[in-house]
Amino acid sequence: MNGSSLLLENAVTELAKLPGIGKKTALRLALHLLKQDKQSVEQFSEAIVNMRRDIRFCSRCHHISDEAICGICTSPLRKKSVICVVESIRDVIAIESTQQYAGLYHVLGGVISPLDGIGPDQLHIETLVARVAEEKPEELIFALNPNVQGDTTVFYIQRKLKGLPVLFTTIARGIAFGGELEYADEMTLAKSISKRIPVEQGVDRIG
Amino acid sequence: MNGSSLLLENAVTELAKLPGIGKKTALRLALHLLKQDKQSVEQFSEAIVNMRRDIRFCSRCHHISDEAICGICTSPLRKKSVICVVESIRDVIAIESTQQYAGLYHVLGGVISPLDGIGPDQLHIETLVARVAEEKPEELIFALNPNVQGDTTVFYIQRKLKGLPVLFTTIARGIAFGGELEYADEMTLAKSISKRIPVEQGVDRIG
Repeated sequence: MNGSSLLLENAVTELAKLPGIGKKTALRLALHLLKQDKQSVEQFSEAIVNMRRDIRFCSRCHHISDEAICGICTSPLRKKSVICVVESIRDVIAIESTQQYAGLYHVLGGVISPLDGIGPDQLHIETLVARVAEEKPEELIFALNPNVQGDTTVFYIQRKLKGLPVLFTTIARGIAFGGELEYADEMTLAKSISKRIPVEQGVDRIG
Repeated sequence: MNGSSLLLENAVTELAKLPGIGKKTALRLALHLLKQDKQSVEQFSEAIVNMRRDIRFCSRCHHISDEAICGICTSPLRKKSVICVVESIRDVIAIESTQQYAGLYHVLGGVISPLDGIGPDQLHIETLVARVAEEKPEELIFALNPNVQGDTTVFYIQRKLKGLPVLFTTIARGIAFGGELEYADEMTLAKSISKRIPVEQGVDRIG
């Protein structure tokens, strides 16, 4: 890059491996870190290494956790009768940030996608089936992305759980708050009309 | 953030301290790092700590360096008779990436800016004066940003070097390659006309 510092070059190369960070941004970040005091930089890098080394996954719901069982699964404030099935940890974080959901989760770790070589065995479906049999939740909310893979996964899980007394639901699809009808795709708009809800109920949901 | 992992939260907080990285991007980066194997993450973080701990600044030109004197200053291929005066390390890297400049550099570490409390004493101006007296370069190229602070700095340095047989030049200002006349600001356009160059010379410069 500039021939004068291999140390800088190494740091830039490593930073540029991060998603969405190109060579130029990596250089900017490296020069920023160079300007910080040594202690801050060590703290920065320790936080990352510690996270990678010590983080665990909840043996029950497969969400990230510092303990064997995560804070959500052990919380006494959580409704044990509802399990929200999601694809990834990011989905849990997204739903948690709404502060509107008080049930449990189950992170599948992906969706069934034969084209990508992902079958049911690579996902946490067996543990979900075991959980439903053991914990006997009243409801499973599927919060998977609405595409072929997501639908296939829901279908597969439903078949696996056939006969068990559990209600299957899926999150509502429709026009986003702040979204404009004019720009909505036809499928979403069509669904939002066919699955319309009484006004009172809709208003209640927000509160 | 999600209550289930302090380790993740710490890493996100640290990543979000980087310039241009918000909470959401930091979370994306942290989850990306979580998916990498331990060795890669350690390598990532070591590269950064090593850079911060071991990097030095060239005692001659103040550019970053792994040694006491940087590779540019010690290179036998470099013309010792020209010194390009720049504000920061980033400017050296930018000029080096053009591969068109074969002289030396002098990094000031900023420009004179009384409003920000930066006077000549906080910059590497004394060492520049000493270098010019000792190394006797034929030319000083000022590659500072064209604003009041840059101009003040050039003016100050010129006065400090009064009487020494050195030619002062500044980088050409004009319409950028690929730039459109229509969108150029008036000052740049006016300068590019008043400082026009013969066509042959202009063509030569690119090659």
